[in-house]
Amino acid sequence: MTLADVQALTFDVFGTVVDWRGSILREGAELTQRTGVVCDWAAFADAWRAGYQPAMQRVRSGEWPWQPIDALHRRILDDLIPAFGLAALDEHERDRLNRVWHRLDPWPDARAGLERLRSRYVVATLSNGNVSLLTNMAKRADLRWDAILSAELARHYKPDPEVYLTAAALLGLRPAQVMMVAAHSNDLQAAQTSGLRTAFVHRPHEYGPDRAIDTRPTFPVDISAVDFHDLANQLLG
Amino acid sequence: MTLADVQALTFDVFGTVVDWRGSILREGAELTQRTGVVCDWAAFADAWRAGYQPAMQRVRSGEWPWQPIDALHRRILDDLIPAFGLAALDEHERDRLNRVWHRLDPWPDARAGLERLRSRYVVATLSNGNVSLLTNMAKRADLRWDAILSAELARHYKPDPEVYLTAAALLGLRPAQVMMVAAHSNDLQAAQTSGLRTAFVHRPHEYGPDRAIDTRPTFPVDISAVDFHDLANQLLG
Repeated sequence: MTLADVQALTFDVFGTVVDWRGSILREGAELTQRTGVVCDWAAFADAWRAGYQPAMQRVRSGEWPWQPIDALHRRILDDLIPAFGLAALDEHERDRLNRVWHRLDPWPDARAGLERLRSRYVVATLSNGNVSLLTNMAKRADLRWDAILSAELARHYKPDPEVYLTAAALLGLRPAQVMMVAAHSNDLQAAQTSGLRTAFVHRPHEYGPDRAIDTRPTFPVDISAVDFHDLANQLLG
Repeated sequence: MTLADVQALTFDVFGTVVDWRGSILREGAELTQRTGVVCDWAAFADAWRAGYQPAMQRVRSGEWPWQPIDALHRRILDDLIPAFGLAALDEHERDRLNRVWHRLDPWPDARAGLERLRSRYVVATLSNGNVSLLTNMAKRADLRWDAILSAELARHYKPDPEVYLTAAALLGLRPAQVMMVAAHSNDLQAAQTSGLRTAFVHRPHEYGPDRAIDTRPTFPVDISAVDFHDLANQLLG
């Protein structure tokens, strides 16, 4: 099997396709304007995201039953509300804020890069986000996916192998015919262990424009690209 | 709940979105030209389709374990090969023929009608076809779905209620916020029993242009439309 055997690309979404932090800041500023509630939205976004891995770990370990990311985001949000001065928000506003993850904006290269990659490959999400979140996000951002695949369909969270193997099976492909695309080494490492090909995309500003992070992959990946256009250049030749 | 609450439309595919019979005839003629194998492709298409409900029934009843439509189509095909003079086809050609269901052509109004409906609604497949079949079909036919939903995700075949309820749950909606669109009363009746809204689309030539079938719904549906443009006219006003 070589890279020429790859028929589908599956994409991590949070951080890889969309700028979750910038989008939360944008919506937070709008929320402040609409309601008068004051909050350090940058610190809030970071705290919300920091609760994500521990919450998924409680599902992975069996401490919590299976539940989609919308429910985990809401649990984390509810815990953060007092410390971030958000107690004045009513249930409608809390639910709306929780669903900001359905309204994240893509990185500038994402839409056009995906469109180029779609010309040769099946392109699908493969995110820990639930199906409705990914569907609503794609519709709003005009991202054209051939299929919405999610950890929800395996009822396991990445990096559990079930997620990658379920995705390949649903696409009717062997794992080596699928390439996982992500900005995070742990995601790609798990995909590789399950037999998938790997493409690393550098997103140095995932944690903000003023805090460039080291985004080099921590193990040998099949392709390393600076953005989706670079990925398309390398794959389409 | 009224029709104004509907946020997503889920579509039956075989017969409702695509012309399975005409597409099998088209590919059959190509196969004859390529291999010299002679077959009554119209009778073959009808026989293949006639095996579909009994095969799914064996899965529904538990006689056969869960398996996707690709596998059921292949079992039926293998049974038909001797009677239809197809024994000369090698394994490559048999597999290729089996995957004709991934390459069905849409009815003339389907693509543009869907695009109009997409402007207001989440549009998704909800077919007994497996995810890879529906994904490959949409890509080839340039049908733009917001999500590919399938009986495969519930591991039940329509009209089992699990299929409709799983679809609504994956879309993050209550059943009454989802409208099932189909050319077949039994599909819509089951969707309605599960709480979904129903739209009947008339496809009088599903079984061939020379054999117009009675396509009136057998029970009161929410909307009855002659094609997807008519459906869009009625829903978008």
